[in-house]
Amino acid sequence: MKPNRKIAVSQSSKSGLPPGALVHVGDRDPSPTQVRYFVYNQDFIKEEQLDTAAESFPGEDQFAWIKVSGLSDLEQIKQLGVLLSLHPLTLEDILNTNQRPKYEIFDEYLFMVLKIIRIESSPNAGTEDKNNLTISSAQLSIILTDKIVCSFEEGESDIFKGIIARLFDEKRRLRKLGSDYLMYALADCVVDNYFFVFDRIGEEIEGLEDRIIGGTDSDVMGEIYALKRNLLNMKKLVWPLRDAITGLIRIKPAFISERTEIFLNDVSDHLYQLNDILESYREMSTGLYEIYLSTLSNRMNEVMKILTIIATIFIPLTFIAGIYGMNFASMPELQWEYGYPASIIAMVVTAGIMVLYFRKKQWI
Amino acid sequence: MKPNRKIAVSQSSKSGLPPGALVHVGDRDPSPTQVRYFVYNQDFIKEEQLDTAAESFPGEDQFAWIKVSGLSDLEQIKQLGVLLSLHPLTLEDILNTNQRPKYEIFDEYLFMVLKIIRIESSPNAGTEDKNNLTISSAQLSIILTDKIVCSFEEGESDIFKGIIARLFDEKRRLRKLGSDYLMYALADCVVDNYFFVFDRIGEEIEGLEDRIIGGTDSDVMGEIYALKRNLLNMKKLVWPLRDAITGLIRIKPAFISERTEIFLNDVSDHLYQLNDILESYREMSTGLYEIYLSTLSNRMNEVMKILTIIATIFIPLTFIAGIYGMNFASMPELQWEYGYPASIIAMVVTAGIMVLYFRKKQWI
Amino acid sequence: MKPNRKIAVSQSSKSGLPPGALVHVGDRDPSPTQVRYFVYNQDFIKEEQLDTAAESFPGEDQFAWIKVSGLSDLEQIKQLGVLLSLHPLTLEDILNTNQRPKYEIFDEYLFMVLKIIRIESSPNAGTEDKNNLTISSAQLSIILTDKIVCSFEEGESDIFKGIIARLFDEKRRLRKLGSDYLMYALADCVVDNYFFVFDRIGEEIEGLEDRIIGGTDSDVMGEIYALKRNLLNMKKLVWPLRDAITGLIRIKPAFISERTEIFLNDVSDHLYQLNDILESYREMSTGLYEIYLSTLSNRMNEVMKILTIIATIFIPLTFIAGIYGMNFASMPELQWEYGYPASIIAMVVTAGIMVLYFRKKQWI
Amino acid sequence: MKPNRKIAVSQSSKSGLPPGALVHVGDRDPSPTQVRYFVYNQDFIKEEQLDTAAESFPGEDQFAWIKVSGLSDLEQIKQLGVLLSLHPLTLEDILNTNQRPKYEIFDEYLFMVLKIIRIESSPNAGTEDKNNLTISSAQLSIILTDKIVCSFEEGESDIFKGIIARLFDEKRRLRKLGSDYLMYALADCVVDNYFFVFDRIGEEIEGLEDRIIGGTDSDVMGEIYALKRNLLNMKKLVWPLRDAITGLIRIKPAFISERTEIFLNDVSDHLYQLNDILESYREMSTGLYEIYLSTLSNRMNEVMKILTIIATIFIPLTFIAGIYGMNFASMPELQWEYGYPASIIAMVVTAGIMVLYFRKKQWI
Amino acid sequence: MKPNRKIAVSQSSKSGLPPGALVHVGDRDPSPTQVRYFVYNQDFIKEEQLDTAAESFPGEDQFAWIKVSGLSDLEQIKQLGVLLSLHPLTLEDILNTNQRPKYEIFDEYLFMVLKIIRIESSPNAGTEDKNNLTISSAQLSIILTDKIVCSFEEGESDIFKGIIARLFDEKRRLRKLGSDYLMYALADCVVDNYFFVFDRIGEEIEGLEDRIIGGTDSDVMGEIYALKRNLLNMKKLVWPLRDAITGLIRIKPAFISERTEIFLNDVSDHLYQLNDILESYREMSTGLYEIYLSTLSNRMNEVMKILTIIATIFIPLTFIAGIYGMNFASMPELQWEYGYPASIIAMVVTAGIMVLYFRKKQWI
Repeated sequence: MKPNRKIAVSQSSKSGLPPGALVHVGDRDPSPTQVRYFVYNQDFIKEEQLDTAAESFPGEDQFAWIKVSGLSDLEQIKQLGVLLSLHPLTLEDILNTNQRPKYEIFDEYLFMVLKIIRIESSPNAGTEDKNNLTISSAQLSIILTDKIVCSFEEGESDIFKGIIARLFDEKRRLRKLGSDYLMYALADCVVDNYFFVFDRIGEEIEGLEDRIIGGTDSDVMGEIYALKRNLLNMKKLVWPLRDAITGLIRIKPAFISERTEIFLNDVSDHLYQLNDILESYREMSTGLYEIYLSTLSNRMNEVMKILTIIATIFIPLTFIAGIYGMNFASMPELQWEYGYPASIIAMVVTAGIMVLYFRKKQWI
Repeated sequence: MKPNRKIAVSQSSKSGLPPGALVHVGDRDPSPTQVRYFVYNQDFIKEEQLDTAAESFPGEDQFAWIKVSGLSDLEQIKQLGVLLSLHPLTLEDILNTNQRPKYEIFDEYLFMVLKIIRIESSPNAGTEDKNNLTISSAQLSIILTDKIVCSFEEGESDIFKGIIARLFDEKRRLRKLGSDYLMYALADCVVDNYFFVFDRIGEEIEGLEDRIIGGTDSDVMGEIYALKRNLLNMKKLVWPLRDAITGLIRIKPAFISERTEIFLNDVSDHLYQLNDILESYREMSTGLYEIYLSTLSNRMNEVMKILTIIATIFIPLTFIAGIYGMNFASMPELQWEYGYPASIIAMVVTAGIMVLYFRKKQWI
Repeated sequence: MKPNRKIAVSQSSKSGLPPGALVHVGDRDPSPTQVRYFVYNQDFIKEEQLDTAAESFPGEDQFAWIKVSGLSDLEQIKQLGVLLSLHPLTLEDILNTNQRPKYEIFDEYLFMVLKIIRIESSPNAGTEDKNNLTISSAQLSIILTDKIVCSFEEGESDIFKGIIARLFDEKRRLRKLGSDYLMYALADCVVDNYFFVFDRIGEEIEGLEDRIIGGTDSDVMGEIYALKRNLLNMKKLVWPLRDAITGLIRIKPAFISERTEIFLNDVSDHLYQLNDILESYREMSTGLYEIYLSTLSNRMNEVMKILTIIATIFIPLTFIAGIYGMNFASMPELQWEYGYPASIIAMVVTAGIMVLYFRKKQWI
Repeated sequence: MKPNRKIAVSQSSKSGLPPGALVHVGDRDPSPTQVRYFVYNQDFIKEEQLDTAAESFPGEDQFAWIKVSGLSDLEQIKQLGVLLSLHPLTLEDILNTNQRPKYEIFDEYLFMVLKIIRIESSPNAGTEDKNNLTISSAQLSIILTDKIVCSFEEGESDIFKGIIARLFDEKRRLRKLGSDYLMYALADCVVDNYFFVFDRIGEEIEGLEDRIIGGTDSDVMGEIYALKRNLLNMKKLVWPLRDAITGLIRIKPAFISERTEIFLNDVSDHLYQLNDILESYREMSTGLYEIYLSTLSNRMNEVMKILTIIATIFIPLTFIAGIYGMNFASMPELQWEYGYPASIIAMVVTAGIMVLYFRKKQWI
Repeated sequence: MKPNRKIAVSQSSKSGLPPGALVHVGDRDPSPTQVRYFVYNQDFIKEEQLDTAAESFPGEDQFAWIKVSGLSDLEQIKQLGVLLSLHPLTLEDILNTNQRPKYEIFDEYLFMVLKIIRIESSPNAGTEDKNNLTISSAQLSIILTDKIVCSFEEGESDIFKGIIARLFDEKRRLRKLGSDYLMYALADCVVDNYFFVFDRIGEEIEGLEDRIIGGTDSDVMGEIYALKRNLLNMKKLVWPLRDAITGLIRIKPAFISERTEIFLNDVSDHLYQLNDILESYREMSTGLYEIYLSTLSNRMNEVMKILTIIATIFIPLTFIAGIYGMNFASMPELQWEYGYPASIIAMVVTAGIMVLYFRKKQWI
């Protein structure tokens, strides 16, 4: 599992500029901007062009979803900002994709920042044992007004494919309830996706466990560290989002109906659950480190034991052989008829005592 | 002690679906659904069929307990949802058995999620020393309305056998007090069962202690890790439940009478106590790890000491023997009459000095 | 220092029973019940029999202290419950001696649970260095009504001897002030006793420090663990009691006069101080573990150094001796007149270089 | 990365003095004082001399920025204190550059303390691998009244160059909005600069990671410690500033308009983000330590393995050679024709068995 | 740095006594009591005898400071208690010098407990490297009424010399403002002194750093532990004092004017700063431990490497020599003319391969 090595600070690249300056800030080059306009109510839905509808957009009794993906076309985004009368700082936050998850309430709209997490197995990792997960995140900014939801995705993704499909199905609640329910559906979709990512990380942890406890692999420290780093990055996404959603529910802003609030509570529940899992994972990764350390110690112990056993058995024997290798003129034993076998017996006895001693120590 | 290896995330298997979709989500296949209906008041109790009583269920001055176990029959559960006018999200939560313990208050009912913990000693573990505990949890969802308690158990269990027995005994408080007291009785029964589980874990910890301090076993790290993981899982059940019960008491919902509140306080007390114990266990497991690490170090020290003693005693002796094994033409000592015994004496003296030195160092 | 090995869970032994069932639950067999009745006011005090006074007990303008020790006589305790009109759960809590410290306010009375800590030096420990402290706790339940204090001690103890003596001394504040002051006096007495226990643990820690730093003892890990466990147990007693007393002061129940409140503040201060000490002790025990670990490492280092020095000095020498022990037909050095002394000199020079090298490395 | 070794306590150098005594306190000698006066409104801006304008400074409908850098000229600063009617303690805090970030609200003005962080690569570090960052901080005190912003920088820096430039550009918001917006702009500029510093530290961490995991460098512990210390110092700056800004927004002081508040919220967001990053960095540095420790253990293991393999292979062989080097008169093997090759074969077989054993143990 | 080994529990020595009993409790014998009375207002100041002024003390429009040092004369302190109408518990707290810092508000007075920290370099420590700091604390109790400040110092110290001097200087604010400002001045003086102590500890830490990183000293673990213990003791003083001062400011007691409150805020700021420093120190001491541990490991690694290199180079050589030391009748090599030089060359080549291998492994 490889963490996304680029640490997300990078605010600095715009450090000299005045606040509210519209410059894209992020770790990646911005994707080309693509805008889709959906207008719908309980009875109809169509995808249309904004320029034909800008003034009276959306029509009476209609809701709209402006789905922007890719943030490279600053001009188009600026126009949307005018249409929705966004505060300059909001526009800046949309373009700076290093925001933490948060919500902000303005007089005319509610602004929300979430993170879409993408997980990729690096194909170049090769070995079947080591799954190398690369976790990256893309910013999703949502503007909610009375009748319009405007979502800005950092890059292109098909995470909302299911929602578009449900939107075109007239039997769905999504069509019957207002913009706030659509905003909830987007957030719920993003958070549900986290569970998928956590599942993958969970499998990763289990793989690591097996390899550490099984002892088949001696160099997992780098992977434990990468795991910890991935969990750290996840925490930076999940914790503030949980706080944001909980705060949003408590504040009960005008843009969100009570009916939708119950559904938001559900998202909040999921985030609490994700938090619990995240904390478990973090403690488990600490546990893996401890297991790994003790595995190292154990292995060292075993190595040392074998060295000690062999060395301590043979060192005295070699010493005995050394004695009878001395060239003194008068060494009576050397002339004994059974001197040689006697010395061999002495060696065997010595070795036997050693072995018994080690067996008593439970080393063998 | 083996933790339940399946990490409870799995929300993802329904990730694309709209909220409120009725699909069973869980780690296990759902058990077959079994529904029992109890209608009772102070004077009578009977177990009856719902279809005969659905409209006027339960009758005036009567309380009812609908006990559902097994979540496979979606149709039947949906019908119950209609009978009790449950919110779609509530039904979804009942079927998704990966909820955290929580409570939710709706206008018509109170919804509560608890976890029943089951503990099993794996019989295949074999050795009498190592008790392998498998801890698993099953979800219990409770719906409380004015007159009805409806409990949904994930699987089948006989944990509520005692409560049914008390219900059939007319002298019991359970018959005299209303539905809220029955709900309390169910929760109390679940929490009391936690104490039993904690007792088992406590014995496990003591067994580990004995084996680590006694030093009879060298490979307990996997078990310490499993213990930690089990405690982590317990924490994910106990902490939110404590918060839920405490929150429930503070909020004083309409469905719960003041009389029952005092009893709920008692459950809350128990959960605080369980929390204390859990935290102790977690600190103890850390302590066990530390002890184990230092045991490893100590053992290594002992091995090293023996190696060092034997090697350092014999190496100089072997060196002396080596010298007199040299084949120089003129080595006067070799011709001395008492050269051989003198060399032996030199060796003994050298060894003696070594031994004294080690004794001074308190190694022997 | 040996911790009380029985981990205090044991709620489970009554797991199937309905709440409020009167069964003694605890780690020990209950002691025989002994009840003493003290009736007093500013002018008189006498110890009397309850049966003669039950109806009008205590008389007008009188206060009473019912001192129960030992919880085996369920019947007598049930009668007291009737006399004081105790809630069934209160009676249950009194008999179940695994409660955490807490307070509960009922309409007719205030219920408080404290723990008396007993510390014993095990006489069988033997060696003068190792003090083996056994820490155990006994439950003290206090019922406070307008005019009556009723205290239930789990076992027999003479901790309240001083309070009885003060009660019989008419000049004491204890006689002049009401029941609430008596309750305070009991709690203060229990908490003051904690300081004594902490003093003993402090001495224990200092003893451990001396032995670890002095290095005279190599196997203190078990004792550090026992110390940690004792501190954990203390924390389970001190923290909730602090919360309970602080909560009691904040809530200002009707049973406690403002005059007594100031004194309770004093108890609360003491508990905060005990908490500080406890936290220090816990950090110190961690520090002791760290010291111990580094002592182990240091000792290993020293052992390794000696082995390395001796081995690396003699191995090359033995090699030189080995060379001249070879039996080649033509080895010119062997025939040199001063070959032998030359080889000895070569060995001495080699050894000298080694020694100088080690001295430069500051190993010798 | 070298931490600023001077630990910022030094309050002590004025310990005997009365509060409010005007003495410069700091780690460095004060820089020479330089004061610049900017007067501006939407229509004009000029930089002027104070003495010509002191009484009516700034004019009606005008805002002023008094930019002080260097705190050595106590007299001039005292005069500014009189002009702005500063409390003696405020003046003292301006001169004592060891303040923590904070804000204080007085009747006539708002007082704020921030820290400007400077980061320098030590050129003397030399090696291309090791970037040695020296992190130092300089105090920035801001006084905000209705119409005046007065900023006191500890030393000289050009951090506000961009702000002066924007001030001279009449199209900028900075000119149109009041003093509170200027104060915000200063704070925003300081906080934006933190991102730059964090970027550098992030690179440092990545460099350390590479060197530790790559194992090319064996002595990174000092650098990990320096990193931790730098992060500690950053935390002492960022945490209180976050609390101060958040507190300021909550309190809504009269000096700050609602319009500016939204912008301050943005600064607060950035500080929360910096906090997240800081905490990640701190956990990463702990992770680096763990990786480093396990790298040490691994390396030791490898060393031990090689020693053990070579020693255990050759020790028995040397023993066999030793046996046939003995000088017993009757050693039949010695006379055998193929004794020598047989002994060699015995040795090879022994070595082969050893090698197979080690291969089975997966050591080779 | 040596911690004050006596752990401050010792409440126990009065455990049997009733609350409010006037007995001195502390770690040291009480110093002889010395009382000085200062009466002052804006226009005059004199030091006088109490007995001449007790009834009308201090006079109209006058403030008084009763400075008590040494707590041995219980009678005199009791009289002061009567004069100031102190609650019995207050008197008890003054005499029991093991209080935590706190404040208590009574109807007639405000009671505050602080700790004066004294730091001493043990002269007997000797070596110039190791500064042995002994940190001890003395209790300062302050009673504040409308017109009187009464300070009780545990022992004698000249910490308030500067305040007395300022009091005698009529131009000082101290003379113009009331008793509450004097109380503030005393507290400020005590807290300022903490900075001095922290400076010394900071130097101590830097010394330790240098010695650990420099590696000139191998036995710093005891000192790290002593440092940690000193920091623990400081924390027990600083944290509660911070809470007390902050609480005092929030509660706004009648005895403290708004003017003085601003100054108390300053003390509170200092305490927050001290807390930050303390926490840094505590983390640094952990960092020092980690560095020390890895230094130990590194040293072990180096020792092992040298042993391994020398042993693995010479063991095969010695084996070759051993082969040619065998006494087989037919060993053709022995008869070869260049057998000896060939064997030497074989040895050199073997050694060379070893050295190359180690160089590849970057061990040499």
